[in-house]
Amino acid sequence: MNIVIDSGNTYSKVGWFREEKLIRYTTHLTFSELIEAVRSEMPENILFSSVSYNAADFESALGKSLKIYNLSPETPLPITKNYDTPQTLGADRIAASAGANFLYPGEDLVVIDMGTCITYDLIDKDAVFQGGLISPGVKMRFNAMHSFTKRLPLVEPEPEPPLIGKSTRSAMQSGVMNGVLAEMQGIIEKYRHNSPDLRVLLCGGDAAFFESSLKPPIFAVPELVLIGLNRILTYNVSLQ
Amino acid sequence: MNIVIDSGNTYSKVGWFREEKLIRYTTHLTFSELIEAVRSEMPENILFSSVSYNAADFESALGKSLKIYNLSPETPLPITKNYDTPQTLGADRIAASAGANFLYPGEDLVVIDMGTCITYDLIDKDAVFQGGLISPGVKMRFNAMHSFTKRLPLVEPEPEPPLIGKSTRSAMQSGVMNGVLAEMQGIIEKYRHNSPDLRVLLCGGDAAFFESSLKPPIFAVPELVLIGLNRILTYNVSLQ
Repeated sequence: MNIVIDSGNTYSKVGWFREEKLIRYTTHLTFSELIEAVRSEMPENILFSSVSYNAADFESALGKSLKIYNLSPETPLPITKNYDTPQTLGADRIAASAGANFLYPGEDLVVIDMGTCITYDLIDKDAVFQGGLISPGVKMRFNAMHSFTKRLPLVEPEPEPPLIGKSTRSAMQSGVMNGVLAEMQGIIEKYRHNSPDLRVLLCGGDAAFFESSLKPPIFAVPELVLIGLNRILTYNVSLQ
Repeated sequence: MNIVIDSGNTYSKVGWFREEKLIRYTTHLTFSELIEAVRSEMPENILFSSVSYNAADFESALGKSLKIYNLSPETPLPITKNYDTPQTLGADRIAASAGANFLYPGEDLVVIDMGTCITYDLIDKDAVFQGGLISPGVKMRFNAMHSFTKRLPLVEPEPEPPLIGKSTRSAMQSGVMNGVLAEMQGIIEKYRHNSPDLRVLLCGGDAAFFESSLKPPIFAVPELVLIGLNRILTYNVSLQ
């Protein structure tokens, strides 16, 4: 059994793998719930990836003498990086890209990960991470309009709101949901212009709002980050 | 001489008009600078519009016995509103729409105002405000990614960044600038689908970043809100 941990901006997620197969996962864990979840079933191999916590925090909280792989900018990867600032490249972006290349080797791919932020990343058919875009996530857009103005309310996401909002709330829902959809469609179109056979993979918590509205072919792989983390873990185990 | 005041989320702007003509304007005023600017040249008519301050604050700070028109949801308008919540409809959206209909009467129009938020509003050829969309503005998107995550830096807007960012900063610049551009293009395209002769008017501080990248015809009218406020002012004066 392998365990991979994706500790994001807002919560942590744990995935249990048997070889390449995701057996189960659990999400929205606080740091102490995360430690409890890992202790409940001792894995053979474990990989920890975090944009917020330190792997050292995790290791000392776990308090077991386990071999823990920590995904850092120096971790050997099954893909290569063509990026100017690899030290600040988000682990989730690399993991999703490794997962995409594992599922579809030899193809030009774009991964759209719809979490706290929306990241668009290109991985080419030679398994090279080429970089991409970062824009605010769905909930972040709603939070920002409420937090950074005096009079706009806090609004929840709504799938497929009408294009023309007839109230402040519906105008905000339309602006975020139709805005994100148009952003994704436009950026996919520009990427496809450069790479006609590009395969589009969609993952992250907000992907479900959009997958049916995007022009096919779009492949939704909700747990792409976990799949990629496990791929990085098995790659590193194989190097030992 | 007419004076119109647009007091927004972040600063105030004053425009001086002789009949329908904008003579000059000044912007980025604090509230006390605003009062000073208005006192420096006594107008015949004055209209005050604010999303943050109260007209009463303004009247008492000015301390002169002037007839001040205050743009409120009850103010008579040269356009009509087909909107469910006119009480919370932003004054800047109504002003820009009145300005658009004044400049291009008898046409279907969409006004895109790129300020703190980006508003997209439809005014039809019968001078009816039909509602629209609200999404986060350019600087708001950068601020949100910095404020609502632990590791993303605060990045400044950059005109026409490369589509594929090779660093965190350039990925964020691309995500916001190319994201907003794709959002605008997609939404304009959907609106044009319903109204093929639609005229697109662009205004607001960030419009300059995008006007040359959008598919023509696009008409940039930077001071559309002031023009609309003056139109509302002259309309109300004419009713006396």
